[in-house]
Amino acid sequence: MKAVILLSGGLDSATVLYYAKKKGLKTYCITFQYGQRHKKEVNFAKALAVKTNSDWKLLDISFPWKGSSLIDKNISLPKRKGAGYDIPNTYVPGRNIIFLSYAVSYAEAIGAKTIFIGANQIDYSGYPDCRGSFLQAFSNAIKKGTRAGVKGNTIKIEAPLLDKNKKEIVKLAAKLKVPFKYTWSCYKGAKFPCGECDSCLLREKGFKQAKIKDPTLRNE
Amino acid sequence: MKAVILLSGGLDSATVLYYAKKKGLKTYCITFQYGQRHKKEVNFAKALAVKTNSDWKLLDISFPWKGSSLIDKNISLPKRKGAGYDIPNTYVPGRNIIFLSYAVSYAEAIGAKTIFIGANQIDYSGYPDCRGSFLQAFSNAIKKGTRAGVKGNTIKIEAPLLDKNKKEIVKLAAKLKVPFKYTWSCYKGAKFPCGECDSCLLREKGFKQAKIKDPTLRNE
Repeated sequence: MKAVILLSGGLDSATVLYYAKKKGLKTYCITFQYGQRHKKEVNFAKALAVKTNSDWKLLDISFPWKGSSLIDKNISLPKRKGAGYDIPNTYVPGRNIIFLSYAVSYAEAIGAKTIFIGANQIDYSGYPDCRGSFLQAFSNAIKKGTRAGVKGNTIKIEAPLLDKNKKEIVKLAAKLKVPFKYTWSCYKGAKFPCGECDSCLLREKGFKQAKIKDPTLRNE
Repeated sequence: MKAVILLSGGLDSATVLYYAKKKGLKTYCITFQYGQRHKKEVNFAKALAVKTNSDWKLLDISFPWKGSSLIDKNISLPKRKGAGYDIPNTYVPGRNIIFLSYAVSYAEAIGAKTIFIGANQIDYSGYPDCRGSFLQAFSNAIKKGTRAGVKGNTIKIEAPLLDKNKKEIVKLAAKLKVPFKYTWSCYKGAKFPCGECDSCLLREKGFKQAKIKDPTLRNE
């Protein structure tokens, strides 16, 4: 059984890839370049796909508008303390909607029945397109808007991390033998994670609470 | 008020562009290259955008999978008699889902409140992603999955041609002074429309029933 995996090279999508492999699925990964600040996670995504014998496609979908600090270097990245506040300026308009749309097209073209996404609505940055209510609504749009859907054979979205906190995700990843050193979470692309952006803070919290050492960190 | 227009260069999207202009909206058009067999309609899309003083963006989103005769020259285009049968092989998996996703991102980035699409579920080729039920489901996904949506200011999809037949569309286009010679419907990109593909047949029917001469046809 084929499955399409949205693979960014971050911790969550890597965990989801290993989760799908564990289920015995034939995995077709897609990674997007959409103008993010660095290509570090893209290289890790490729390494993860190779390690899991997955098919891997890199799509360059950079669009000529901005609206987010993640794709516009004129906007400063926020330094804040973890999740739980308003939607930050790292929110990229329509990002997961676009990613999932490509995944739907790919799944339908190759006959995959499932799309896996590392979306999470617990320890996250408040992006609306990571929430279960969105994924449910989008699933319904797939059902109505694809040939597979109207033929009664709709493509499903699976988000196995949706309701896990970061500690649980790190623990699951460890259990699935995700190679942590090939995952990247920091919004910046320096040699070591900055330790200050939302994404670093969430990751740090997860590893700390799971009592596992994060090999991507600077040796101090 | 800003509006994003999905503009292919075909008759329907051209009509929708003129419809939005007539409403006094500031129009931001997006045209996609997604590996279609020819670029003829893309050039017409540009001409229409220029004529209407619209902003125009061309996005190359060719994806490395196929699954449709429209983007795979190894699959023959069907020759059939108009609409009303099963979904033909010109169906491109996820096409309108991808187009609308980009439109959502664009709309949110520039603060547009509406997306216009020339979708039609009467005289059409049976594509599921042209139907009202899909557009409604997708609208709900936008509401749940965007910052604008969760802030109670969701982006709306308008499909003013949805329930019109082709005759009514041609009549509306004529009333709005759409320059028919700058629209292209044929799946092939020859000098003149082939007159045999679904798209040609639907267009021909519309002009005939509206008793208007189609200037794109070969002079015979």
